[in-house]
Amino acid sequence: MIAEIIATGTELLLGETLNLSTRYLSEQMSSLGIEVHYQIAVDDDRERLRGVMAAACARSDLVFVTGGLGPTYDDLSREVAAEVVGTPLVFDSEQLRRIDGFFQGKSPSEGSDRQARFPEGSEVLENTVGTAPGIFVPGLQELTPETSAPGKPIIVLLPGPPLELASMFENQVVERLRAILGSRPRLLVRVLKVFGFQETELERMIEDEWGAWRVLDPAESLSCVLLDQHTYLELRLCVRGLIEEEARALLERADAFWSGRLGRRVFARDEQSHAGVAVELLRERGLTLATAESCTGGLLGGRVTDVSGSSAVYQGGVVSYSNQAKMSLLGVAEESLQRFGAVSEVVAREMARGARKALGSDLALATTGVAGPDGGTAEKPVGLVFIALADAKGEKTLCKEFQGDRDSVRNMAVEAALDLLKQYLDGDGVCSN
Amino acid sequence: MIAEIIATGTELLLGETLNLSTRYLSEQMSSLGIEVHYQIAVDDDRERLRGVMAAACARSDLVFVTGGLGPTYDDLSREVAAEVVGTPLVFDSEQLRRIDGFFQGKSPSEGSDRQARFPEGSEVLENTVGTAPGIFVPGLQELTPETSAPGKPIIVLLPGPPLELASMFENQVVERLRAILGSRPRLLVRVLKVFGFQETELERMIEDEWGAWRVLDPAESLSCVLLDQHTYLELRLCVRGLIEEEARALLERADAFWSGRLGRRVFARDEQSHAGVAVELLRERGLTLATAESCTGGLLGGRVTDVSGSSAVYQGGVVSYSNQAKMSLLGVAEESLQRFGAVSEVVAREMARGARKALGSDLALATTGVAGPDGGTAEKPVGLVFIALADAKGEKTLCKEFQGDRDSVRNMAVEAALDLLKQYLDGDGVCSN
Repeated sequence: MIAEIIATGTELLLGETLNLSTRYLSEQMSSLGIEVHYQIAVDDDRERLRGVMAAACARSDLVFVTGGLGPTYDDLSREVAAEVVGTPLVFDSEQLRRIDGFFQGKSPSEGSDRQARFPEGSEVLENTVGTAPGIFVPGLQELTPETSAPGKPIIVLLPGPPLELASMFENQVVERLRAILGSRPRLLVRVLKVFGFQETELERMIEDEWGAWRVLDPAESLSCVLLDQHTYLELRLCVRGLIEEEARALLERADAFWSGRLGRRVFARDEQSHAGVAVELLRERGLTLATAESCTGGLLGGRVTDVSGSSAVYQGGVVSYSNQAKMSLLGVAEESLQRFGAVSEVVAREMARGARKALGSDLALATTGVAGPDGGTAEKPVGLVFIALADAKGEKTLCKEFQGDRDSVRNMAVEAALDLLKQYLDGDGVCSN
Repeated sequence: MIAEIIATGTELLLGETLNLSTRYLSEQMSSLGIEVHYQIAVDDDRERLRGVMAAACARSDLVFVTGGLGPTYDDLSREVAAEVVGTPLVFDSEQLRRIDGFFQGKSPSEGSDRQARFPEGSEVLENTVGTAPGIFVPGLQELTPETSAPGKPIIVLLPGPPLELASMFENQVVERLRAILGSRPRLLVRVLKVFGFQETELERMIEDEWGAWRVLDPAESLSCVLLDQHTYLELRLCVRGLIEEEARALLERADAFWSGRLGRRVFARDEQSHAGVAVELLRERGLTLATAESCTGGLLGGRVTDVSGSSAVYQGGVVSYSNQAKMSLLGVAEESLQRFGAVSEVVAREMARGARKALGSDLALATTGVAGPDGGTAEKPVGLVFIALADAKGEKTLCKEFQGDRDSVRNMAVEAALDLLKQYLDGDGVCSN
């Protein structure tokens, strides 16, 4: 079964918004094991929309169209779909009542009528988040997962706004697709999140080890995709073409093989985050954490508190952006600032020690650096960051030189601080260097 | 002149990455006044790539293809472009030297050879960021901005990675396009960033006022696009079809008209950010700022310090995530916490006052709330946030109930805090309510 995804909306073609809907549906197709061959975006033009819908119906078995289901004159998806399928639009008074009900007493627009029309023979997909119902046009009755019978595909019209689309897809489309797919071989993905490698380094390691992996997977069911997520890398292990039980078993073998070679540089898997795993480890050990931030300005605290339940371990922190704040809130010695400067290992240590004391926590992370674009010098260039972790016994520090703009330097510093914490919790355990 | 953008890469079709390259190019086309009618994404499949490239060349005047310029076997763009254009690939030894030089002594892959081949008659676009040179295939000589002569379009092959693509586009493609475009009517856009409106409210206001605007713009050169950016709205004013001087004049009239009706809810324009305008106002007045954050966990400090040069005005802050931290670092009274709870107007005021004192700043912003998903009660549901601004004379507070998940509540709270600060700096000036 081949899927095609069409997104409508002039704002996409103007580059005004990111195409999140298409990405979402593509991810869903991946996890259902349905290949997507084309992604199209067109503006709100009747001719062009008809053209791409017709082309999609001629070559694909499952066609998604997002957007164009609103109540205004440039919402064309219903009408064009009916033309392409070759059936009339039929009025559904029950749906009109639901749409009008959404306006709760305010006068509905004439557009509600437009939204309550559906191609004859199609099924209504309820919208519990917004006003626009979706439309499910069943394909040929004889279509099975193994056959591809373009010409009369399944057509699914969904709202453009990602939250409405996701809700409708998860609640009403997935079940219909699963019914058709049955026990079809699935695509299973395991994501290994990796810190501390350059992309080319990791590529080379994978190439070097591929031969050894091939012995375990002679049928070549596994493929690897390496993605650069800016502050870390993702190694995506994808298993195709096996029934679920075998696929899961191979995926676990693949995880064990590749994380074996990557060791502690794998900090998280799938949906886990760096902060999430660190918070979990802290919670398991009954340890508390504080932060002292200069160049990262609060972003590290923001990442830690992204984690629901972090209040069990995170006491709080100090954003000591000025030298005065470093002294008055963290007890950093004026002499240290004068002798070594704010961006120095000495000051990073004192900041971490000071946060530990001020917040009364077991551990504390500190960052101080030159985020840029201004403030760099020959000895202390833009991108230079010191990171320190303090425990009861001492401090562990890192000195890094990050490349990139202000955002990159700050985000990389946060990621490196989380890594330092995780490595400590994973068993270094010693704060002295 | 009509443009079409083709992005290649299986990872796009698997939903693994967001299509940033297509968005970037679409934005560039918008600002050059070139309409984009189709955006396509295909996987690394020779047949499909040839099919979409051929279709694009038949219907568009300017065809971009991103990705597929790497050194591996599944990098198909060069070869397929040459097939579609109908010219052979020619080896360029100068380019081979450059590509090999990028490897700085490490052995180049055989892929370097592949990357040093170009369709006969095309121009090389240097890549100063990565290895893959781009390719510029000039179209028909007689093509002018007003004519559309599909069949022999300009074809531009660019690297997939957004940074490489943007660098190459800005440094080498824009100039070539401008030479063709000449003094063609441009699309000019002014973005008004608006806080404090629901999207439907703002839509209604625009509808109500459109008649009055039409009097100033009988030729209907202006169009409006309303975009929901989650924590604020964007009203994009677009002027088309006029020569530059007239377009700029109309755009200024449009800005004056619409911001006149929106008043102080317009907090920034174009590339300006909420924090950026606040920092600028603080700097102009010679005022300093501190922050005290509970539920936002450091995100507010992070937003303020996003702004290059914020160290001139931002002293720092406290992330008082625990009640203990609120007391010990900000001097919040234990009695206040016990009587009113951490999420209360009283505690918000004390946090702001405390930060002002602890950091020695003129102004201080504080946030305290229930970010969720846990922690909500009947009286203090998830989404309840108190925000306070303290100056020498007193405090101004807001009580908000935000909808959405943890991220939404936290990000909305940050935006609302920045708005409170900006309204104060814009002239409220009084901290008492």
